[in-house]
Amino acid sequence: MKVDGTWRRAIELADDRRSVVVLDQRRLPYDVAWVRLASLDDAATAIRDMTIRGAPLIGATAAYGVALALAADPDSLEGACAVLAATRPTAINLAWSLAEMRAALAGVPRGERVAAAFAHAAKICDDDVACNQAIGRHGLALIRQAAARRSGPVDILTHCNAGWLATVDWGTALAPIYAAHEAGIAVHVWVDETRPRNQGLLTAWELAQHGVPHTLIADNAGGHLMQRGQVDLCLVGTDRTTRSGDVCNKIGTYLKALAAREAGIPFYVAAPSPSIDWTLTRGLDIPIEERSGDEVRIIRGVEIVPATTAVANPAFDVTPAALVTQIITERGSVVPAALAGLFGRS
Amino acid sequence: MKVDGTWRRAIELADDRRSVVVLDQRRLPYDVAWVRLASLDDAATAIRDMTIRGAPLIGATAAYGVALALAADPDSLEGACAVLAATRPTAINLAWSLAEMRAALAGVPRGERVAAAFAHAAKICDDDVACNQAIGRHGLALIRQAAARRSGPVDILTHCNAGWLATVDWGTALAPIYAAHEAGIAVHVWVDETRPRNQGLLTAWELAQHGVPHTLIADNAGGHLMQRGQVDLCLVGTDRTTRSGDVCNKIGTYLKALAAREAGIPFYVAAPSPSIDWTLTRGLDIPIEERSGDEVRIIRGVEIVPATTAVANPAFDVTPAALVTQIITERGSVVPAALAGLFGRS
Repeated sequence: MKVDGTWRRAIELADDRRSVVVLDQRRLPYDVAWVRLASLDDAATAIRDMTIRGAPLIGATAAYGVALALAADPDSLEGACAVLAATRPTAINLAWSLAEMRAALAGVPRGERVAAAFAHAAKICDDDVACNQAIGRHGLALIRQAAARRSGPVDILTHCNAGWLATVDWGTALAPIYAAHEAGIAVHVWVDETRPRNQGLLTAWELAQHGVPHTLIADNAGGHLMQRGQVDLCLVGTDRTTRSGDVCNKIGTYLKALAAREAGIPFYVAAPSPSIDWTLTRGLDIPIEERSGDEVRIIRGVEIVPATTAVANPAFDVTPAALVTQIITERGSVVPAALAGLFGRS
Repeated sequence: MKVDGTWRRAIELADDRRSVVVLDQRRLPYDVAWVRLASLDDAATAIRDMTIRGAPLIGATAAYGVALALAADPDSLEGACAVLAATRPTAINLAWSLAEMRAALAGVPRGERVAAAFAHAAKICDDDVACNQAIGRHGLALIRQAAARRSGPVDILTHCNAGWLATVDWGTALAPIYAAHEAGIAVHVWVDETRPRNQGLLTAWELAQHGVPHTLIADNAGGHLMQRGQVDLCLVGTDRTTRSGDVCNKIGTYLKALAAREAGIPFYVAAPSPSIDWTLTRGLDIPIEERSGDEVRIIRGVEIVPATTAVANPAFDVTPAALVTQIITERGSVVPAALAGLFGRS
């Protein structure tokens, strides 16, 4: 997607073709700073400290992390996977990506491993882009339905950032919105601030780069807007969705799903298949990352909560399948109960 | 309640007995600064710019605002009421307090008006304290019930600040919590941050002053905690409750009520009778204040959202009576349908 008018991906192979560059998402929207990842440690740190975030981009960065590790030591595959797997617990794309890399590298001779690893990491990135474009097409059909039911712009509420910054390109939840915007359908996006890390600012930034009308709101406001008929549909991403369609996503997603059901508003989840955990049925079995209270206490370097105040900071929550209207995958959009069938897993 | 160990009220007559002092709540929890209100303009500004806030304290401050106006001009009653009534639209305690002052001053000779106004403003403050103590007693019974059902501390989730800082003393939603704490019942309070103005910090500050265990959370976290069994009851205040029991309160309250119902957790609202609007049945008819987007954009003087980003900032929402387990008033706690009967208004 566009950064100041130029098309970029959220992770790109560097000119030396043996390192990658990523946007430092902690500095957006105020600074557009690309940083180079040249080692396993760079990649693991970038995931852990949230220089990059978003389940698909975590997966893509981990894939390159394996390649960077092998470039330093062709026998470090298992060690590298262990380091990367431990960076963040919730997004399943991370484990998926590492399993993909392991499978692609199985039996590859020592001398060919680095090239094979970089090639497969690039394939994971290209597949992510194609996957998100397909989600964009399938989701566009749902936005078209909403547009047909009303006159003015379609009001879409989203939480966190599931845009191109959370993926390699296009985004998951935002892909249908970009597709609708490009198809000439008038849309307006309510962007949840998404405390404590305020990823809503990433969403606002990338929507602004593409000229998509949007309004930032406090996370508290969504229920009120839905109750008053100011939202036509909700559309969010996911860090891990179970085979039964329970959706783990950024903390606060669940509250919006409850409000959507109460208001009779469709609640859509964009879930590329690497974010689906076929080994789990119950969403409540997904590990929820508890992050530092300093994320709540400090914004842009400024303390807003005294250090003496105890803070809890669960980073994700689970929206039960019963609250999800449709799950939008690269193969099409289905009700949660049909998800496994869509992928031949039922 | 206590400020650094000394018992204070949130609004107090000054030593000159012709002005009042209030805590500047915009500077808490970092600075404890008392400011003097010596004129109608001072009082109106303090309400409008949220030097003070909280429905009962707005009412008390408006009452003194009338007295301060009459001290400058004994014939300014109607003009003063008009100025004060226009400061903020949602809390009904403001209109109630002005009506009380008008009634108390009706027929009072010109030369006695100032003394009568100060006396009645003082009575409104004393009545608020007594009312909140009664709410504390009635709410304590509900917390006792919860304590009887479990072993460890009773986990109570609250939103915004409905503590003594929102009233003259004791608070509404926090009064039962203070009563429980003083009765030796172990409680732990989950304090919603309450974006965008972060009044949760006021709640954390006053709970800390009294030694009540608490943990601050992002507004997004409450649904997750309730879903996981980490909340025994929710307890919030109200800016205006209709005769049918629809509850208007700080934006985001509605989302927590939805999550409480989903988890089978009691959702209690502390509503002193001056916050009940007997003229309204439908909560959706209550005017919702839309405040400046800068409240979302700027924290502690630091811009966290670029000025170019559009922001919407509705300050309150409405929780339908169907989501409210009990309304705790100074006369007792009842289901919403019994509210009017409790006050002989059915």
